Amino acid sequence: MLKPLGDRVVLQVQEESEQNVGGILLASNAQEKSVIGTVVAVSTQSVGDMEAPKSIKGGDKVVFDKYAGSQITVDGEDYLVVHEKDIIGLV
Amino acid sequence: MLKPLGDRVVLQVQEESEQNVGGILLASNAQEKSVIGTVVAVSTQSVGDMEAPKSIKGGDKVVFDKYAGSQITVDGEDYLVVHEKDIIGLV
Amino acid sequence: MLKPLGDRVVLQVQEESEQNVGGILLASNAQEKSVIGTVVAVSTQSVGDMEAPKSIKGGDKVVFDKYAGSQITVDGEDYLVVHEKDIIGLV
Amino acid sequence: MLKPLGDRVVLQVQEESEQNVGGILLASNAQEKSVIGTVVAVSTQSVGDMEAPKSIKGGDKVVFDKYAGSQITVDGEDYLVVHEKDIIGLV
Amino acid sequence: MLKPLGDRVVLQVQEESEQNVGGILLASNAQEKSVIGTVVAVSTQSVGDMEAPKSIKGGDKVVFDKYAGSQITVDGEDYLVVHEKDIIGLV
Amino acid sequence: MLKPLGDRVVLQVQEESEQNVGGILLASNAQEKSVIGTVVAVSTQSVGDMEAPKSIKGGDKVVFDKYAGSQITVDGEDYLVVHEKDIIGLV
Amino acid sequence: MLKPLGDRVVLQVQEESEQNVGGILLASNAQEKSVIGTVVAVSTQSVGDMEAPKSIKGGDKVVFDKYAGSQITVDGEDYLVVHEKDIIGLV
Repeated sequence: MLKPLGDRVVLQVQEESEQNVGGILLASNAQEKSVIGTVVAVSTQSVGDMEAPKSIKGGDKVVFDKYAGSQITVDGEDYLVVHEKDIIGLV
Repeated sequence: MLKPLGDRVVLQVQEESEQNVGGILLASNAQEKSVIGTVVAVSTQSVGDMEAPKSIKGGDKVVFDKYAGSQITVDGEDYLVVHEKDIIGLV
Repeated sequence: MLKPLGDRVVLQVQEESEQNVGGILLASNAQEKSVIGTVVAVSTQSVGDMEAPKSIKGGDKVVFDKYAGSQITVDGEDYLVVHEKDIIGLV
Repeated sequence: MLKPLGDRVVLQVQEESEQNVGGILLASNAQEKSVIGTVVAVSTQSVGDMEAPKSIKGGDKVVFDKYAGSQITVDGEDYLVVHEKDIIGLV
Repeated sequence: MLKPLGDRVVLQVQEESEQNVGGILLASNAQEKSVIGTVVAVSTQSVGDMEAPKSIKGGDKVVFDKYAGSQITVDGEDYLVVHEKDIIGLV
Repeated sequence: MLKPLGDRVVLQVQEESEQNVGGILLASNAQEKSVIGTVVAVSTQSVGDMEAPKSIKGGDKVVFDKYAGSQITVDGEDYLVVHEKDIIGLV
Repeated sequence: MLKPLGDRVVLQVQEESEQNVGGILLASNAQEKSVIGTVVAVSTQSVGDMEAPKSIKGGDKVVFDKYAGSQITVDGEDYLVVHEKDIIGLV
């Protein structure tokens, strides 16, 4: 798995059929911008003014802006690497 | 319910028929930009330079810019997640 | 009345017929940008780097940029919520 | 007279026939941008990071950028309210 | 080899046939923006507010934004010089 | 003479025939941007975050960006008022 | 020679025939942006937040962005004045 740097977090995007998590369902007109994902890796290494995240940990389910971040594929699974500040909240 | 991070607040938007709160009625030409809502969740976790809100608490009725923030739906109810700085005031 | 947050101030805009206050009359080519108003509410709650105003108080008559701020209506009266830094001066 | 706030200064613009002050005559191709004026009021009240001016006082003749600032009219006289940093120098 | 300054790092870009490293394969729609490379030199000399990198060392395999950085050629090999903040993570 | 404020410096532009100073001749394709001048006045009064210049003094010959600054005319002589940071170096 | 101010450095651009220095040859598609040069003068006088360079000294061979900086000619030789932060690294 990628080990993210700075304030970055690696997220596994939920399948569309799983986008209803803990009672939260992203509204249709919001789905283009916000997505639910699971945290699979969190940076432990600050870089410059990008401090390592403190608000989330592996396994957390989060709502985030899907256009924020870089897409990578590991063993056929899609992941997104986003900055902690782009994570809207915990489910 | 979503647990917001940083300086974020989760708001339940007032029904249009309830937009007259405490004597405040949003002017027609302002309704496109400002909306009255009820605070349903407040971040308790600062992220980077986004400090957890101190000026508002759950249950407060607030005027905010409806284009600021991300829309989510929980159990069929619409919510908006906004930054504390985009809340204009308390009703 | 709205209780403004951060560095915000609630202003009641002067009627046009009252725009001559204390000898000050806004020049015609300036009227599109600057307006005289009366302070009706001042934030007492700083938010992030928006400190609560110290330079003005309720009842002050001020010149401000009318395009700065959000319009609200309370009991049929129009008000503008502006940031302290957008208030040009006291009349 | 308007009492300016923050780092603002109220200036009375020199008549064109008086634009030659202390040997300084604004060059023709500069006249569109720079103007000579007299300081009639200086803010004594800092606002946020706009500190009250220390480099000038009432009565000073200054060169400033005439497109910086807001125009007001008091008792039929035109004035400009500018930020201290937009005053180029003292005549 | 170039000795980078500030927060810069010299990277050797992986051949396309080697872009599957440690199970990570860059997704096709991401390949235009993200690339895997090997760190061949790291600045040890801060410049202004660009601090010398602490999160990576020579030999590390990293994912980075290939449009960030300056291309140089040493002895026929292509290298990219990037800022530490543009390195997404370690493989 | 104008007494400049903040980080400003008043320069007398060299005649073109004098643009070769101390062995320095501005290259033809650079002449449109850089000019040699003589310092005739230096601000001694900091304004906000514009500190009074320390790197130059009256009489210094300097290379500067001629599009930086405001042009004024005193007793028929052309001058430019520039910020210290726009002075490239001393001749 | 020009005595640079702030964080500036005077560079003598390498002749194209000398662009292969210490094994480094700038790639053809990079040559439009990056150039090898020799440091001939370094500022010793900080200006505002532009600190005098510490990472390089006279005689150093450096790779830099040729569009950063101002061109001057001294005794028929071309030089570029660049900011320290625009120097990519030492050869």
